Amino acid sequence: MIAADVLQHIGDTLEARKESSPSSSYVASLFHKGEDAILKKVAEEAAEVLMASKDKDRLHLVREVADLWFHTMVLLAHHGLRPEDVLVELKRREGISGLDEKAARNPQS
Amino acid sequence: MIAADVLQHIGDTLEARKESSPSSSYVASLFHKGEDAILKKVAEEAAEVLMASKDKDRLHLVREVADLWFHTMVLLAHHGLRPEDVLVELKRREGISGLDEKAARNPQS
Amino acid sequence: MIAADVLQHIGDTLEARKESSPSSSYVASLFHKGEDAILKKVAEEAAEVLMASKDKDRLHLVREVADLWFHTMVLLAHHGLRPEDVLVELKRREGISGLDEKAARNPQS
Amino acid sequence: MIAADVLQHIGDTLEARKESSPSSSYVASLFHKGEDAILKKVAEEAAEVLMASKDKDRLHLVREVADLWFHTMVLLAHHGLRPEDVLVELKRREGISGLDEKAARNPQS
Repeated sequence: MIAADVLQHIGDTLEARKESSPSSSYVASLFHKGEDAILKKVAEEAAEVLMASKDKDRLHLVREVADLWFHTMVLLAHHGLRPEDVLVELKRREGISGLDEKAARNPQS
Repeated sequence: MIAADVLQHIGDTLEARKESSPSSSYVASLFHKGEDAILKKVAEEAAEVLMASKDKDRLHLVREVADLWFHTMVLLAHHGLRPEDVLVELKRREGISGLDEKAARNPQS
Repeated sequence: MIAADVLQHIGDTLEARKESSPSSSYVASLFHKGEDAILKKVAEEAAEVLMASKDKDRLHLVREVADLWFHTMVLLAHHGLRPEDVLVELKRREGISGLDEKAARNPQS
Repeated sequence: MIAADVLQHIGDTLEARKESSPSSSYVASLFHKGEDAILKKVAEEAAEVLMASKDKDRLHLVREVADLWFHTMVLLAHHGLRPEDVLVELKRREGISGLDEKAARNPQS
């Protein structure tokens, strides 16, 4: 299936980009600018998700969620983490009861 | 691999929850509250991602990114969309050149 | 006192900028780009407030809160509203009991 | 004029609330929960500003901007700062040329 491949591939690509010249790509430039620049992008993409949802523009929404996930993966890579770490965490909570237990334990988060 | 299964399974679970009683689970309650309540959770989780990153707390960061992805999937389900739609979009942009082309075309987003 | 003057003056300046050429100033350019561009700035400045707070950088925090207030005033002007409208609303809630009543009525917001 | 009084009064009230029992008021409870709880509120209120703007609901927008400014003042108080500090910073930038110079110097922020 497509999911495993694409997230793993993005994880691999991001790791490689961390070592490359800032001028070589958008992502390499973002890594070079550092954590705050990445966090600003995460916040901006989250805002764009809100705006696309309010606009009832489903195609735009999918693109903005993809942008948001992508920039959170850049942030994970900045911290030496992988998309698979998130999937393992989601897997851990999987199942209806798991999700609800989590929510019950931690309703604020 | 784990990824395909967990995101697809979450997509299935969320679809089922849309039809169930608001009192039956956290997610069913969130669907019942509607779009603005979901968007507030997305914004809140994005803020928690920023805070966990600033705290250099990697375990917390993974959990908050999982929370953020999860609530964007709730938002997608609200709009009749699936996690797989995001994966297809990411796949479309996949490859280094693809990502950079996208960034070059649309540096603001 | 300083407050009344500066907010009122910013309100006046923003109104004037709405009519001027996009190339004449940063604010005129932002008005020309429209609501979504302004909202992205509000979200970005809110993120920078979070980051400055986490950095325990008080001077930076004051500057980022000023940026955030300023861009919310741009948004108000976009909607034909004034900084004074916000002050009147804050005045309405003023006093300890007023603030707490509001919070009690609307704990989510 | 109203502005000076209301912001100064809120600053005074917030300072007093920092010393009071968590159970005595909404604000005292928020101070007691600490920085992260305050930052979550700031992020949430920023999201509500975006949503009110998108809804073209001007009355709601004024209220959400008031909520956002109020919670940034709680954050300032947490850091031992005052609303007047923000007004002084805005005053420093006041005048069209001042605002534009700032934007020219620091277009990202």
